Amino acid sequence: MKTWVNGQQTTRLSVYDRGLHYGDGVFETMRVSNGSTVMWTEHFTRLQSGCQRLNINIDPDVISQQLNEIQRQLSGGVLKLIVTRGEAERGYRVDANKPATSIWLYSEATAYPPCFYSEGVDVCLCQTTVSRNPYLAGIKHLNRLESVLARQEWQDEYQEGLMCDEFGNIIEGTMSNFFAIKGDTLITTDLNMSGVMGVMRQHLLDIAGEDGIPTEVRSLPLAELEEIDAVMLSNSLFGILPVRRIAKYHYSINALYWHLAARVNTGLN
Amino acid sequence: MKTWVNGQQTTRLSVYDRGLHYGDGVFETMRVSNGSTVMWTEHFTRLQSGCQRLNINIDPDVISQQLNEIQRQLSGGVLKLIVTRGEAERGYRVDANKPATSIWLYSEATAYPPCFYSEGVDVCLCQTTVSRNPYLAGIKHLNRLESVLARQEWQDEYQEGLMCDEFGNIIEGTMSNFFAIKGDTLITTDLNMSGVMGVMRQHLLDIAGEDGIPTEVRSLPLAELEEIDAVMLSNSLFGILPVRRIAKYHYSINALYWHLAARVNTGLN
Repeated sequence: MKTWVNGQQTTRLSVYDRGLHYGDGVFETMRVSNGSTVMWTEHFTRLQSGCQRLNINIDPDVISQQLNEIQRQLSGGVLKLIVTRGEAERGYRVDANKPATSIWLYSEATAYPPCFYSEGVDVCLCQTTVSRNPYLAGIKHLNRLESVLARQEWQDEYQEGLMCDEFGNIIEGTMSNFFAIKGDTLITTDLNMSGVMGVMRQHLLDIAGEDGIPTEVRSLPLAELEEIDAVMLSNSLFGILPVRRIAKYHYSINALYWHLAARVNTGLN
Repeated sequence: MKTWVNGQQTTRLSVYDRGLHYGDGVFETMRVSNGSTVMWTEHFTRLQSGCQRLNINIDPDVISQQLNEIQRQLSGGVLKLIVTRGEAERGYRVDANKPATSIWLYSEATAYPPCFYSEGVDVCLCQTTVSRNPYLAGIKHLNRLESVLARQEWQDEYQEGLMCDEFGNIIEGTMSNFFAIKGDTLITTDLNMSGVMGVMRQHLLDIAGEDGIPTEVRSLPLAELEEIDAVMLSNSLFGILPVRRIAKYHYSINALYWHLAARVNTGLN
């Protein structure tokens, strides 16, 4: 692994960083392939919108320069970028003059077994709920304790965990977005109150639009798991994966999955 | 300021620390007076209960040793202790064998003007909501973005901001707990779904019990601000402060405040 802080290769960060104290920042986890970062524009756009929501000032040129410098040293793998509000003294108050901190972490690519793509994955139905807050919903911020708690609900018997809000609406996986197929329609969950709007989620919605596949973005109560035909998970690292089972519900792989997989999973496994 | 990581004096932390990546940890902010940490037992008990909830393993003896070593170097001021789940590779999965990280930060005491205690403070009614999650409620974890956002809603015109949940129940201040006085009864908000159970909050409830003051811990809808006689805020640094105004509601200082202030604010200003 290799890491950089504000463009300098180092493994050390200031203990005064607000990322540590408050989770005061955002992040992106990206796939690097053939020396370039896949869907960088989309990731950076989301990062910027997160910074805007939190009122963190970043210089896009500085981030781009850092990316170019780092990318030159990599071939394939996973690149994580964390941007925090930077260092501060005690207290929540924001000093707009303090520069943001950028932290880049590069690691080997995760190998997803081919059978995950061809046979599907098993999903734990988590007890841990995702909280609702319109001020934080959608952005990929550093307050991720709910995913950490949910991830402790299983070991190796599942490949992902599904999380609901306190009203029993399906929101997302701990590290992925949720898609259901019902008839010919691709449904994904509404994330205006909870959850992370994934770059791959948006990419799938765009592709569905291009290919004339009807889509719905709406509340999806847990009880609807019984009525849907197929389920898929998406993220930027694995693309899309079909789901074989969620708790007592079993699903088979749908033709629409194969169509979308051919569009987004190329080169992934 | 002085800082220590795992007992060593340093200002640097690993970029792999899960405190940074996920806010995966808890903290305490404590008052140091005459070379000892005020209400250390209560703070450490809450820290331990937070660690237990998050399933973070800490060695109480190690923390105590670190405190003793650090305390010897201090007279008065503010001591913050952060405990995180330690370093990890990519992903939410928890490795129970990785040791926790302890971070101590010492800073000068904040000077609270005497008029805050004698005339009261003005409180902003924040738009930013506190989210509801029984898995996180009560403990003082590092996912504090809601307080960071709320703190951006005012500058110097207020001394604190009051936050509600999405149903309009009063929960807490950005850095304090909320108390109302109605008749002869001391009321504080129910924190089973949101908020931080403050050490000073519990201390006040205990004192009220000792002194025969009726107490209620319950939901407190925002509309009730109109019906209450007095308001106070509590935290470990300032003790209790009377509130003069919250948005359009004006309050005067109640005899019960003076009684409690005599019990907990001694030596604070």
